[in-house]
Amino acid sequence: MTQAVTPDAIMQLGFGYWGSRTLLSAVELGLFTELANGPLSLDDIRARLNLQKRSSRDFLDALVALGMLKREQGSYANTPATDLYLDRAKPTYLGGMLEMMSARLFRFWADLTEGLRTGQPQNEAKHGGDLFDTLYSDPHRLEQFLSAMTGLSLGVAHAMAEKFPWSQYKSFVDIGVAQGGLPVVLAEKHKHLTGIGADLPVVGPIFERYVASHGLQDRLKFAKLDFFREPLPRADVIIMGHILHDWDLSTKKLLVAKAYDALPAGGSFIVFEAIIDDERRSNAFGLLMSLNMLIETRGGFDYTGADCSGWMREAGFRETRGEHLSGPDSMVIGVK
Amino acid sequence: MTQAVTPDAIMQLGFGYWGSRTLLSAVELGLFTELANGPLSLDDIRARLNLQKRSSRDFLDALVALGMLKREQGSYANTPATDLYLDRAKPTYLGGMLEMMSARLFRFWADLTEGLRTGQPQNEAKHGGDLFDTLYSDPHRLEQFLSAMTGLSLGVAHAMAEKFPWSQYKSFVDIGVAQGGLPVVLAEKHKHLTGIGADLPVVGPIFERYVASHGLQDRLKFAKLDFFREPLPRADVIIMGHILHDWDLSTKKLLVAKAYDALPAGGSFIVFEAIIDDERRSNAFGLLMSLNMLIETRGGFDYTGADCSGWMREAGFRETRGEHLSGPDSMVIGVK
Repeated sequence: MTQAVTPDAIMQLGFGYWGSRTLLSAVELGLFTELANGPLSLDDIRARLNLQKRSSRDFLDALVALGMLKREQGSYANTPATDLYLDRAKPTYLGGMLEMMSARLFRFWADLTEGLRTGQPQNEAKHGGDLFDTLYSDPHRLEQFLSAMTGLSLGVAHAMAEKFPWSQYKSFVDIGVAQGGLPVVLAEKHKHLTGIGADLPVVGPIFERYVASHGLQDRLKFAKLDFFREPLPRADVIIMGHILHDWDLSTKKLLVAKAYDALPAGGSFIVFEAIIDDERRSNAFGLLMSLNMLIETRGGFDYTGADCSGWMREAGFRETRGEHLSGPDSMVIGVK
Repeated sequence: MTQAVTPDAIMQLGFGYWGSRTLLSAVELGLFTELANGPLSLDDIRARLNLQKRSSRDFLDALVALGMLKREQGSYANTPATDLYLDRAKPTYLGGMLEMMSARLFRFWADLTEGLRTGQPQNEAKHGGDLFDTLYSDPHRLEQFLSAMTGLSLGVAHAMAEKFPWSQYKSFVDIGVAQGGLPVVLAEKHKHLTGIGADLPVVGPIFERYVASHGLQDRLKFAKLDFFREPLPRADVIIMGHILHDWDLSTKKLLVAKAYDALPAGGSFIVFEAIIDDERRSNAFGLLMSLNMLIETRGGFDYTGADCSGWMREAGFRETRGEHLSGPDSMVIGVK
């Protein structure tokens, strides 16, 4: 046995779900939202979150040790990061995705081994349900989910506003727009742009509320779209973020071809998500996101920039390039 | 919004269960055991582990990105650490605990929020079962579990063999001995010692097989013990590792008092586990282990060295001290 070979990294990864799950429960319980008004004692927190005495102190001190809370003179407080990103009352709230993972996805990942053995999704679909049907059937739940998506994509939106040559284009359409987080950032940053947010009809009022709250209703319009049955709306730039990975290869290629058809000559197609590095060695998040597509969809998978460029060229795009955006997300750009 | 305050640490922790679960599935599937004989291609691995084509490449490349596999010229291979610690055929195998987490504990942790709200265990007990009854009812499953415990405690055993003044004592008893990993290390390192491994009767043959395989049957004997109904066996040193945290406060104190009663004057009581730092700020693993006791037991919890010293002094021990052992584990020593 070599002295230098320790099991530490293995054990840290294997037990890693304990800390992860502890944070998810804290977000689900609204702990950071309660603490946004100021530090609270253990007893106050227990009363507000309706926690039993048993384990509540361990729960809070574990969050201190994990760097998610501070504790001073017996009172617990948010850190600057948890205060900014995990308080439901702030527009910077990122907890929607974590709440969703706490309520459903963590449980479904328990069946990863079965997923790998069967190739079948391990979510509501196992019992005859469908993720998107379930999501879209309850407008309140849908708005919560779409709001979570906005929070998660803000960093990416700001990066795309900076890194793409918007001055060369006048209009864009965001396919699967959700609440409209990206169009709002692009329109605020580039005053000459007009945009269309395209999604299923149920998303319309949610998009329009969000856009109006930023005073952008004159430049950003909603278009209802079933992208399997209809052509995509026309614009100088077509954007698809976190869409292609939901689908199998032939559907991916169909969507890329539809984007090509809807663009003018010289128009650009921007695809972005947690694009896997071409060597498939370093973007662990992108590779794990692809396993998440196994859990959540019937044929979806994530892919490398080279994969995406290949599909674009096959569809007729004359030029492609990739660029990192923010965190695990990159974009692949195809020019017609 | 301060530039320096990023959501990266929050997101990394929140999504952390994806990588953790991926490793657990790999161990459960026996991936590292298959690769211990040499590198294999994707197709070979799929055939041997009975994996679907969908997602199997993402699964393996995710393990590469997580540092658990190497990939060269299209073949996958163990790293030095996964080869040493995650190959079932090696005596250094540590995967038993990870297999157990893959098969049951990950799923139970999905109910952490309910546990915090009810104070009740979230394992088999929820449906009328009992962890220890379930474990001890199937001798094969029990041997697997006890073997997992041995693997996990080897580092601690070597540290205790070095850091405790064994030359001053002649005999020890290990309460809740399991397979006997600790007694074997102590007896191998200190030839003058004799030891007793005490546990429920069903453990006897498993202990005796393991001890005989190390040729130590003359110096290490098994004693059947129900520590709630019987006094502890007498010895110069009494050891309790990963026992006290399973129980509520009054049972903890009862066990400490029983240790006191069974020791001669000058004898030592060694308690070890993932003892929480007295400030309850830095040993995240110990605090999370305490939440694991919520999931797994009706009243168990982990504790600080100061807590344990307090119970020892209350029971009559005249002197106590704490010392770090290995990884997250420390020992508290009480002298009678």
